[in-house]
Amino acid sequence: MSRALSKLLQCQEKSLLRDVNSIDLHTHVYLPRYMNMLRERQDVPFVRKLRVHADSELEEDRLVILPDEQKQIDDAALGTQVSISAGRPIGGEYWDLNEKLAYMDHHGISTSVLSLANPWLDFLPTQEQTSMATLLNDDMEAICANSQGRFYAFGVTPQSLEEAIAELHHIATLPHVRGIILGTSGFGKGLDDPAMLGFYQTVDQLGLTIFLHPHYGVGNEHYHNYGHALFLALGFTFETTVAVSQLILSGMLDQVPTLKLLLAHSGGTLPFLAGRLDSCVAHDLAISTKLQHAPSHYLKGFYYDAIAYHTPALQCLIDFVGSDRIVFGTDNPFFPPHVEEGDPTINESDWSSTIANYETLADLDVGVQNAILRENAKKLLKL
Amino acid sequence: MSRALSKLLQCQEKSLLRDVNSIDLHTHVYLPRYMNMLRERQDVPFVRKLRVHADSELEEDRLVILPDEQKQIDDAALGTQVSISAGRPIGGEYWDLNEKLAYMDHHGISTSVLSLANPWLDFLPTQEQTSMATLLNDDMEAICANSQGRFYAFGVTPQSLEEAIAELHHIATLPHVRGIILGTSGFGKGLDDPAMLGFYQTVDQLGLTIFLHPHYGVGNEHYHNYGHALFLALGFTFETTVAVSQLILSGMLDQVPTLKLLLAHSGGTLPFLAGRLDSCVAHDLAISTKLQHAPSHYLKGFYYDAIAYHTPALQCLIDFVGSDRIVFGTDNPFFPPHVEEGDPTINESDWSSTIANYETLADLDVGVQNAILRENAKKLLKL
Repeated sequence: MSRALSKLLQCQEKSLLRDVNSIDLHTHVYLPRYMNMLRERQDVPFVRKLRVHADSELEEDRLVILPDEQKQIDDAALGTQVSISAGRPIGGEYWDLNEKLAYMDHHGISTSVLSLANPWLDFLPTQEQTSMATLLNDDMEAICANSQGRFYAFGVTPQSLEEAIAELHHIATLPHVRGIILGTSGFGKGLDDPAMLGFYQTVDQLGLTIFLHPHYGVGNEHYHNYGHALFLALGFTFETTVAVSQLILSGMLDQVPTLKLLLAHSGGTLPFLAGRLDSCVAHDLAISTKLQHAPSHYLKGFYYDAIAYHTPALQCLIDFVGSDRIVFGTDNPFFPPHVEEGDPTINESDWSSTIANYETLADLDVGVQNAILRENAKKLLKL
Repeated sequence: MSRALSKLLQCQEKSLLRDVNSIDLHTHVYLPRYMNMLRERQDVPFVRKLRVHADSELEEDRLVILPDEQKQIDDAALGTQVSISAGRPIGGEYWDLNEKLAYMDHHGISTSVLSLANPWLDFLPTQEQTSMATLLNDDMEAICANSQGRFYAFGVTPQSLEEAIAELHHIATLPHVRGIILGTSGFGKGLDDPAMLGFYQTVDQLGLTIFLHPHYGVGNEHYHNYGHALFLALGFTFETTVAVSQLILSGMLDQVPTLKLLLAHSGGTLPFLAGRLDSCVAHDLAISTKLQHAPSHYLKGFYYDAIAYHTPALQCLIDFVGSDRIVFGTDNPFFPPHVEEGDPTINESDWSSTIANYETLADLDVGVQNAILRENAKKLLKL
């Protein structure tokens, strides 16, 4: 056990990680109904058995969701033999809620607020989005209702105003669904699309929370030589940064100032860039005079997960927004352990990506730890 | 005077900002020879008198350097009437060293390490780059030599290996030129271009420093609706982040581990994203096994300017790399004051962008302030 994890446990007065009793607000699932749909699809996103080694007949289930992977698939011979870098191996950790519970037990997570993983419904025609959203939200409610308090959820909405508002009202009737996960494309034209205003207003009126999450990447043309590492490390965080900056500069938040927005991955890069963003906006009167406040004012009103992966970044976030707006998260089931990290039975081994997000809390006051680990989440989502 | 600036002056035991005695490592100039070239050009980058209001005959000198502005220019009628958002007003603060000195005196900057501003020589054919680099480096040396110690400089090099190495050897003979400013395109193919290795090795052998600076932007397709604000706030910082990440993942730094690299704008977003970058690389064995260290190891060996614009970001940088690798900078003459901010005589008024970068230092220990304001720069460049 690392010094940092040991210190966290000491502060929390626990001897085992499994007793820490945290609430995870950033944890994904591909629901069985959604998995079935992915298995039937031919284009990205899809799940398919692929021969991943050119010199072996062995096939494995691969989840292919990233926008840049379509070309790899198209380039691959015969449709069943693709580069090993296309997609990622997928197992029960992506859809089996019992595996999720075992992972939670092992890592001291008492409650998970589940969300459908990217790319949600973005790739479906509006009509299919609408019917699928209702079914998935009902699935999610049923899972949560049968979980003895272990699961709550963010729902999903279709990408058009009237249908989305109708689904928000449906979600508001589901006792365990406390908000929605939203991609940065909004209704397909970004979060600053004026058509989104009525959506934000309805979310706000219903007391729901938007969990904003990236999928498409920004700067993707630069990442090809380095697997998925730069796409995920940089493309995702840039995407959140761009989308939220556009939303702020659109001025729409002045019309819905109490909107509850939770930003994935500690806000991308926004806590670091907030000062520069303020300065650049202040030096462009055509932009700044349309806003009631500097960009950082809006940023300080959002919520952020603590998925920062190192202490300087988490401390930057705390210094910027205060510790009462930060909630624990894991990004499970992404970034699973390498097999060689521990027990090959994946749910019984330590997930280093999860441990890293506990370790960043080690040097904080116990009150701040408690706020981030569970208290802030309870208040935000009324758990 | 703000509370923060007042506190900084108190820590520094000065009553006036003009007595602070800082060293500015990020301060640009368009040398007269370079200005003449820009005035003769028809394509971006150029300087030209443009009619900036459709309803007025008034023309003003505009500096047009950003890659996305060519289209605006091409779209404009008759070549002399363009959108007011194309380019920026340009005056003596961009080329007149006496104005630079007046700015420095007013803001307590005893010494400036001058660098040519973007886009440097990137747009010229190799042969012109080569001859122009030598002339500009000699110009820079002459200016510094006649400055009674107020000016040192970063030089420029052409974008091809043999010519660049020759110019590095020339620079090493110029007593006041202590390194080079380098764009993120390197020799045109990025910093991870294998052809760059010999260049890095020569920089290292000669004891020079590379000041790495953005120009091209990343994610530019998302910024059009918001003037230059998002391009400069996000595009620039993403660009530095991408280029340095590529350099690290290329593995070349394992072959030149003592290379001195100074990153503009507090490293873009790298101090915040370093943990996530480590995690994403560690989860991609095809990438991580080619490197001797995690990405953050290399990042901790670089130098960074303190142009962070708010305290949480500067503290993140300090927490990440330590206060002995951070140097004061202003980005002058960009982000000039609005006329209404103070005295219309631009060099006599306070530059809020400069003041902001002093204010972020206010709450630090005086020893850390001194290191960032002047001592680290002296050590890095042997001033």
